[in-house]
Formats: sequence, C-alpha cells, structure tokens
Amino acid sequence: MDIATVVGVLAGFALIIGAILSGGSLKIFVNVPSLLIVVGGMLCSVLIHFSLGQFLAIFAVIKNAFFHKAHSPVILIQQMVNFAAINRRDGALALEQEMRKVDDPFLVKGLQALVDGQEEDDIRALMGMETEYMQARHGDGKKILEFMGASAPAFGMVGTLIGLVQMLQNMSSPDDIGQGMATALLTTFYGALLANLVFIPMAGKLGQYSKSETLAMEMITEGVCAIVRGDSPTVVREKMQAFVSASKRADVKVTI
Amino acid sequence: MDIATVVGVLAGFALIIGAILSGGSLKIFVNVPSLLIVVGGMLCSVLIHFSLGQFLAIFAVIKNAFFHKAHSPVILIQQMVNFAAINRRDGALALEQEMRKVDDPFLVKGLQALVDGQEEDDIRALMGMETEYMQARHGDGKKILEFMGASAPAFGMVGTLIGLVQMLQNMSSPDDIGQGMATALLTTFYGALLANLVFIPMAGKLGQYSKSETLAMEMITEGVCAIVRGDSPTVVREKMQAFVSASKRADVKVTI
Amino acid sequence: MDIATVVGVLAGFALIIGAILSGGSLKIFVNVPSLLIVVGGMLCSVLIHFSLGQFLAIFAVIKNAFFHKAHSPVILIQQMVNFAAINRRDGALALEQEMRKVDDPFLVKGLQALVDGQEEDDIRALMGMETEYMQARHGDGKKILEFMGASAPAFGMVGTLIGLVQMLQNMSSPDDIGQGMATALLTTFYGALLANLVFIPMAGKLGQYSKSETLAMEMITEGVCAIVRGDSPTVVREKMQAFVSASKRADVKVTI
Amino acid sequence: MDIATVVGVLAGFALIIGAILSGGSLKIFVNVPSLLIVVGGMLCSVLIHFSLGQFLAIFAVIKNAFFHKAHSPVILIQQMVNFAAINRRDGALALEQEMRKVDDPFLVKGLQALVDGQEEDDIRALMGMETEYMQARHGDGKKILEFMGASAPAFGMVGTLIGLVQMLQNMSSPDDIGQGMATALLTTFYGALLANLVFIPMAGKLGQYSKSETLAMEMITEGVCAIVRGDSPTVVREKMQAFVSASKRADVKVTI
Amino acid sequence: MDIATVVGVLAGFALIIGAILSGGSLKIFVNVPSLLIVVGGMLCSVLIHFSLGQFLAIFAVIKNAFFHKAHSPVILIQQMVNFAAINRRDGALALEQEMRKVDDPFLVKGLQALVDGQEEDDIRALMGMETEYMQARHGDGKKILEFMGASAPAFGMVGTLIGLVQMLQNMSSPDDIGQGMATALLTTFYGALLANLVFIPMAGKLGQYSKSETLAMEMITEGVCAIVRGDSPTVVREKMQAFVSASKRADVKVTI
Repeated sequence: MDIATVVGVLAGFALIIGAILSGGSLKIFVNVPSLLIVVGGMLCSVLIHFSLGQFLAIFAVIKNAFFHKAHSPVILIQQMVNFAAINRRDGALALEQEMRKVDDPFLVKGLQALVDGQEEDDIRALMGMETEYMQARHGDGKKILEFMGASAPAFGMVGTLIGLVQMLQNMSSPDDIGQGMATALLTTFYGALLANLVFIPMAGKLGQYSKSETLAMEMITEGVCAIVRGDSPTVVREKMQAFVSASKRADVKVTI
Repeated sequence: MDIATVVGVLAGFALIIGAILSGGSLKIFVNVPSLLIVVGGMLCSVLIHFSLGQFLAIFAVIKNAFFHKAHSPVILIQQMVNFAAINRRDGALALEQEMRKVDDPFLVKGLQALVDGQEEDDIRALMGMETEYMQARHGDGKKILEFMGASAPAFGMVGTLIGLVQMLQNMSSPDDIGQGMATALLTTFYGALLANLVFIPMAGKLGQYSKSETLAMEMITEGVCAIVRGDSPTVVREKMQAFVSASKRADVKVTI
Repeated sequence: MDIATVVGVLAGFALIIGAILSGGSLKIFVNVPSLLIVVGGMLCSVLIHFSLGQFLAIFAVIKNAFFHKAHSPVILIQQMVNFAAINRRDGALALEQEMRKVDDPFLVKGLQALVDGQEEDDIRALMGMETEYMQARHGDGKKILEFMGASAPAFGMVGTLIGLVQMLQNMSSPDDIGQGMATALLTTFYGALLANLVFIPMAGKLGQYSKSETLAMEMITEGVCAIVRGDSPTVVREKMQAFVSASKRADVKVTI
Repeated sequence: MDIATVVGVLAGFALIIGAILSGGSLKIFVNVPSLLIVVGGMLCSVLIHFSLGQFLAIFAVIKNAFFHKAHSPVILIQQMVNFAAINRRDGALALEQEMRKVDDPFLVKGLQALVDGQEEDDIRALMGMETEYMQARHGDGKKILEFMGASAPAFGMVGTLIGLVQMLQNMSSPDDIGQGMATALLTTFYGALLANLVFIPMAGKLGQYSKSETLAMEMITEGVCAIVRGDSPTVVREKMQAFVSASKRADVKVTI
Repeated sequence: MDIATVVGVLAGFALIIGAILSGGSLKIFVNVPSLLIVVGGMLCSVLIHFSLGQFLAIFAVIKNAFFHKAHSPVILIQQMVNFAAINRRDGALALEQEMRKVDDPFLVKGLQALVDGQEEDDIRALMGMETEYMQARHGDGKKILEFMGASAPAFGMVGTLIGLVQMLQNMSSPDDIGQGMATALLTTFYGALLANLVFIPMAGKLGQYSKSETLAMEMITEGVCAIVRGDSPTVVREKMQAFVSASKRADVKVTI
C-alpha cells in the first residue's frame, strides 16, 4: 500500500477541517445539495465522456494502483537470479514447481511460456503486449481522473451561478444576501478542494505507478528472456540491473 | 446505442433542475433571449470556423457515434473464423452468398475485394484508406464539439457583459439591480452548463468511439487479409485476438 | 465565396445587436474611445510581433481565403482526365492551347513545366515547393489571426482597468459609478466579441481552407505527374480519386 | 532597424496615454511603488529562473534582433554570385580581398574557411554549428521574454492583493476605499500592459527574426558550399533562390 | 553556488516586504493559519501525486542544483587535455593517481572504467546511462516544483473560499467585513507569491541546471572516449570544444 497517498489525503482533509474549525463551525461548510451538484454533475459528465466499461473499470484500476504492493527491484532480481540457477541446474521443467510460489500473474505468465518451450521472440511479444495493455488501462484511469479534476471545479462554478441567481432574485435583508452568497460559494469550494486535493494529484500518482510498473515488467521480460537463452545467473543479474540506478544496485547472489 | 451517454445527459439535467427547484422556481432560470445569445453566437462562430459541409455533416457523425451499435470483438472474430472455414472448404466465391447477410458496409467492402480476387496489398490499402476517412470524419466532429465547448462559455460571458452594462446604466432600486444581475448571469450559466455537461464530454465520447471503431476496422482488415492468404480458421482467430486483451479473449470455434 | 463565413459573421452581429436592442438602446454600447483602445492596442501589438511585410500580406491572404472559389474535386479530375486524353492523342504540345483556358495559376505552372518537357521529379519538386509556400503564407495568416484573438481580450481588460481606476478616483454619486463601470466594461465586451465572433473562428477557417487547398494542389501534382508519365485518362482518374472519400467519387469520363 | 516594432511600441503607448488623458489626468496612473512591485518582482523571478549569464546576454540579443539590419535575399544572392564569378576567374585566394568589404561575420567566417581550402563537409559542419548557436541564443531570449510576459501580470496580481488587503483593513470613508482600490488596481494594469504591449509581442518578433536569420544563414551556407565545389554563378543563384518564394525571386546577374 | 538564484529570492522578498511596509504594517500580512492552509495543502497534494521516495529526494536534488558548483567548460577541457597527455606519455595506469585529485564522481567513474581497460562502447554506454539517471532525477525535481507552482495558488483559492464563506455568514459591521475579506485574501496572496517568486522560477532554474550539467557530462564522455582511443591532447581539445560556442573557446594547452 502506498503510504504517501493515504497520509496525503488524510492530512489534507484534516488540515482543511482544522482551518475551518479555527474560524467557526464546520456546519456551515456542509451542504448536501451543493455536494450533489458538484459530485453528481461530475459523474454524469464522466459517463458521457467515457464508456460504461471504462467508468466501472476505473475503480479496480485505482484500487490496484493504490493498494497493490510495488515491485522491489532487488527482490525481483533475486527471484530471477534463482530461477536462472535452477534452469541451469535442473532444466526449464524444474521451474514449473517454483512458479507455484510466485504471486505476480505477469511473472507466472512469462515463466509458463518459458516452461512451455516458446521461442524468445514469442515470449518477448507476449509480455510486451501485456505491458501495453497494463499501460492502456492505467492511461484510461489517469485520463478519467484528470477529467474529474477539470469537471469538478466546472460544476462548482455552475452551482455557484445557480445560487447567485437565486440570491439576486430575492434580496430582502443583508443577512439573507450573505447567507445566500455563502451557500453559493460552497459548490466552488467543493469543486476546488476535490480537484486539487484528490483528483489531480491522484491522476499524477497513477502515472507514477504506471511508470514504475512498466519498469518492473520490462525487467521481468528481460530476465525471462535471458533465462530462455540459458544465460548464467550473473548475466541475468547484470541485464536486470541495467534498469536500476547504480546507487540502488544490490549485490544479489543465488540463494538456493 | 450507448447507454452511458443517454443516462449521463438525462441524469445531469435532472440533477441541475432538481438543484434549482430545491432553491426556488425554475422560471427564473428560463430566459429565451439569453439562450439565443449563447446558442446563436456559438452556432455563428461554428459556421465561420468550419465549412457548411462540415457543419451539416456533424449531425450525422454524432448520430452515428451515439446510436450505432459498437462492434463486439467476439462476434467479429466468430464471423471471420466462419468465413475462413467457408473459404477453405468451398473457395472464395462461396463467400459471396455469406456477404449478403453482413450488415457492416466496411466488412462487405473487404469481402467483395476478396471475392473479386484482389491482391492482399491492394485490399490492405483500400481498407486502410477507408479507416483513415472514418477517422478524419470523427476527428472533424470532435473538433467541432470541442470548439462548441470553448465557444459557448465565451458567448455566455459576452451575454453577461451586455446585461451588466444595461443594468449599470439603469440603477434605480436595489431590486432592479438584483434582477438585472440575475438575468445577466444566466448566459454565463447556460454557457458553462452546455460546455461541461454536453459539448466537452460528448467530444470525449466521440474520441473514444473513434478509437474503438478503428480497432474493429483494423481487426476486420487483418482477418480479411488472413483469409486472402488462405490461412486456417485457427490462424485467423489468433491474428484477430492479438488486438484484444487476454482477459477478454473467448475460445471461438467454427460454427458452420 | 464561402457562404458559411459571411452568414456566420452577419448573423452573429445581428444576433448581438438584437439582444442589445431587446434590453435598451444601442447607443450605450457604442463608445469610440473604447473601440480605439481595443482595436488600436491589438494592431500595435501585431505590428510588434510580426514584420511589416507579414502584417500587410495578411489582408491579401484573408481576402484570398474567403473569396477565392474552392476547388471542386470532380471538376479538377475532369480537367486532368481531358488533359491526359489530349496528351495521348496529340502530344504534350497540344496542351499549350488548353492551358490558356485555365484560371488556376498553380495548374498553369504545372502544365507549363509538362509542356516544357521537364522530368517528373523536377515537376514534383517545383509543385511541392509552391504548395509549401502556400502553406507558409496561410500559416502566417492563421498565426496573426490567432494572436489577434488573444490580444483583443487582453486590451479589452487593459481598457477596463483604465476605466475602473478613473471611476474609483471619482465616486460622487451611485449614478456616476454605474455609468463609469458600464463604460469600463465596454472594452472587455468589444475584446470578447471580436475575439470569439471574428478572429478565433476566422483563424480556424483559414486552417480549413489551407487544408483543402493543399489537398487540391496535391491532386493536381499527382495528375500532372501521371500525364508526364503518359498514363491513360483512366489511370489519371484513379490516382486523383485516391485523395477523395469513396462516397464523393464521381464517374468522370473524357469529355473532349 | 525594424520599423514595425518601433511604430508598434510608440503608437501603443501613445494610444493608451491618449485614452487615459481623454478621461482625466495622467497623474493618477503614475505610481512608482506599484511599478517597482511589477518590474522588480518580474526581474527577481527572471534571475531565479535563468542564470546570470543568460540574464545579461538577453539585452544584447534583443538589441541585435531589433536594430540589426535584416538580410535582403536579393543582395545576399548578388554577393554570392559575384564571389562565384571571382572564384572561377581568379581562384579562391582572390576572394580574400573581397572578404574585407563584407560586414556580416557569419559570411566572413564561411569565406575564410573557403579561402583556407577546407573541405565542403567541414565548412557545412562549421556553419551549421554557428547557425545552431545563433538559434540557441535567440531561443533563450525568446524564453526569457515569454517568461516576463507571464511573470509581469502575476506580480501585477500580487501587488493588487497587497493593496486590497491594506485597503480592507482601513475602511474609513467611501472616498478612501475608492482611492485604495484604484491604487491596488494599478499594478494589475501595469502587468497587463507590459505583458501585452511589450513582452509577449517582442518574444514573437524575436521568433520571427530568428526564423529569417536562419534562412539567410542557410542560404549563405548553401552558396559558400556551391562556390567550394566550383559551381558557376548561375548554379549558385539557382541553389540560393530555392529558399525564396517564386514571386520574390529577382534575376540576379554577375556585376563585377 | 548560483548567485542569481540567491539574489533573486532575497531581493524579491525584500521588495515585497518593502512594498507592504510603505503602505502600512507588516503584521496584517502575517497569518499562520492562512500559511498552513497554503503550504500544508500543497505538501499533502505533493505527497498524493508523487511517491515518498521522490518527495524526500527532491530536497537533495534542489540543494545539489543550487549549491553545487557549475562545471566550467575551460577547466573541464584543461583537465581532459592533461589526462590525454599523461595517458600518451605514461599509459592509462598512470591516470589512477590523477584520479584521486578529481572531485567530480562522474569523471572519476569514467576514468576508472578507462584505467580498468574497458572498451569505448561499454564506457560510452555506462556514462550515457549515468547521464540519463541524472536527467531523470532532475526531471522529477522539476515536475515536483512545477506541481507546487500550480498547487500553491489552488490552495490559496481554497483558503480564500473558506474565509469568504465564514465572513459572509457573520456580517455584523462593515469593519468586520473588511477584516474578514482581508484575511480571506491572504491565502491567495501567499499562494501567488510562493508560486511566482519561488516554485515556478526555481523549476525553470532546475531545468537550466540540468541542461548545463548534461552538456558537461557529454563533454566528459567525449573526452574520456577520445583518451581511450589514444587521441592526442589537441584532438581531445577539439572534440570537447565542439560543444562550446566559438566565442567562449579558450586556447587550452597541456599544463603538466
């Protein structure tokens, strides 16, 4: 789970609520109809923009992106170095047993192709295609979140315009005017807060996640292909470490 | 028909009307001259920006995009697998009868070229060009909708400026000022609502539709070319399934 | 002449004037000093941004773009098919007489090179370069119009700031304040109207015109080169029709 | 010297001053602290963004761009045609004397390399690199001016916020409020005026200048290389004229 | 240390504080809760957008970028010319001692590879990869600073909306209204100032720094590779000077 995201969202809302409480009651900032305009209008425009399938898939993608454990390069390299050693010692079929202990479905798919005796080019094409599908799914999710980040403030403004027109048609006392304008501004507040504290940074995190996931998948692909060619554990390690900055390289050795 | 679009537009307008009614009468939000400024000004600027032909074609493109049934990859693959089987069993001419049962004019055009005995390269060029024309038509439609999404709020502001100038020249009582400003703000409200609930998300949907239509046309092209080369139904299926994410691949078999 | 542009501009201004008249007198919207700030400031910034030559050429380019008759693909193909027939029947020199009936200087230039016996590669280079110069001229015009579309609202805001500062320094009666603000807002109104009803959509139309002109020039180039190679009228027609969407292809025959 | 720029700047400021005078005194628009906030803040942010060297070089680049005489293609071609004739008649060394009459250091550098007997490839590399350095310098200048065009309005807003906060803390009489707001708005006015009448269009002009200078340098490079190859004056003219639109080509002859 | 940055930041804040003091007390511009909303909200959104690792690394990257001494091309060339002379005179191993006097870890890495007798292609790949990792780190830092520059004004607006709603709900006296609005505007002021005087220009400086650092690393790579090939000091100098504009080239000679 990505701690930074959770801390950011919780601390951000705590901060805003604290700022509100330091100046008065929280009650005047809670208005269900205003929230409905902003969130409802935004969801409707998302439905118009994207297909129903994309709309429903986004929740899975987001959940995956925020709660899935990121691949550690060192552990990945360790795994592949061990597989290379097993492959050299006991042959490719011996990897079938090891495969059962692996969680990552992408790595399992690569090993299965290896055990099945497929050619390197076919394995590379297969794994490259899976990487592209992952990127397309994450790209869709990022676009939806970015669209939400643009749509929420827009419906915030629509809500404020509704409130202003109603207030202006009905100006009896200064107090009424103040209350009317305060309520009218709430939708703009909701839109700005959701966009800047939730949707826009979350779209950014999804992009970062997609980048690091792509790197891990490319490392796995390179590792599996090296094993297919019968490379030694040392060569497999070198090939996978080329993806990692020098300062983060660990001296991985065969551990089986 | 694309349900998400219809649900989004209807629910969006219901939500806005509900929000208005919860705070007062709907009547103060209906102002025909204000609507004329926003919609009329926007249409005039569309006419200046685009040619008359593009302007008139956009309605057909939009209708097509929203009411045309999307291609199901599984059904497409099923069709082509059957055609490949017929081609192998009875020869290309036997496909002429099958062609009559096909709705999609693009698929018909490809099969006709196949039956006419054209070379693979020529068929690929012909179908590629049709795909490009489709993309250009959708691209034009998307650009017009995006321009509308930028133009509507601009004329909303123009209308509000007209209303403000008139109100400011004629400030007798606070009530008049309030009414004048309320009316002036209506054009901004119309512009923001049309742009964010209709034009901008619809331009997005047209882009999504164009992408999925392009995929279907590329799958058909690949399938027809495989049949021309005399590939077996299994090979045809493999080639078309390369375009589909693994989780959505079905085990299509010849059904004739 | 492009009817859509003329209709758009006239209808747009009629609409705005109608909206103004429905709410009061037109007189309060006419203010020569305000117009001078917006139009004058915009023209000065155009002079600073572009060279004097580009500034003066823009009027010719715009006039050309809006009053020049668009090429009809069918008529173009008809012409070239006839030229191909004459070339085959009577030789290239016989085309010299036909050339005199042609209006389009680009087509004349291509035919002249053909009659002069130049090689296909040289003709292609010559006509390609002319096409590029046309695109550069139109591109310059489009950029100037787009810059005007950004500059006019900016000077509208500058004018409004001048009016506001003067009004705020001199607040005697509420009526004066109203009048001062109304006048101050006029420059913003002029800037928004000129940008959204004139400059921005006209820049778009110039882009569309440049695209369709490029297509026509590429068709002519392809046709002339086919005649140089001695292709038959039918082949010339096929080569030129590849640029046209299938639904717009006509069955052109030799008419001489 | 570029007349359009000078006319644009002078006429623009005359227009704005005239507009101010027609509505009152110029004095209320002159406020040195406000000007300091906008110009000072902008210069500080330029210093942070760019290096001291780039910051100081920008003045030379701007001066060069606005006061340097633009290359006339006809004169350039005339020069090179004469050089080609001299080279053919008297040999490369005879060009050394001609070189002394040439002002343009880029042309001198090219001729020197020619006289020194360098190979065409080396000369082309040398002159191409000089062209790139010129483009990089102009590109830096353009970026700084564009950044100023974005920064000036931003500090205009910062200044207005300072003025507003001070005014709101100290609301004794309506007159004071008016005066306070008027002064607060001055920084926004300065920022908008500087950006739209000076920095943004000047960045554009620098871009245009860089483009035309690049063209001239490419023509000179082509001409020098043709002379190195021993091409005749006619061939040199043809090669250089390929860079010029047909309508601007003059019939240049050897004049020595 | 980059003087321009330090001068810009200090002078910018001095200027703003001076402008505030010239119009009243500094106290009314200091409000800790307002600062907390802007800075806290911004930091939370940075945490959501980026990973914890990137967030923490940014401080090191910024410190490096602002306090690290820029490479002087002349000194770099001098060093490499000397190394080339030593290499020719005493062989590659003699460079090992010289290496100990070198500060720059990138140069040390290159020389070590040279001393170890690695091939030119391997050294080029190794150093190219290090250059890319440096660019990626700086690119991350630039993106974070740019995101801060967009996020700070957004949370400034959120804070102003909170203040406005609270003020509007509680309008007792005109003085209270003024004070409430003044405080509400402070967050917008903080956001605008931080973005325009700190984050946006600092992101720009990081980009400039990354560009000049890339140039230095490419010069070092070219120099080391030339030494590997056994080039003479003169050739090494020529190869490295190709990266420097002619006017900045110094006549470097061997100094050992």
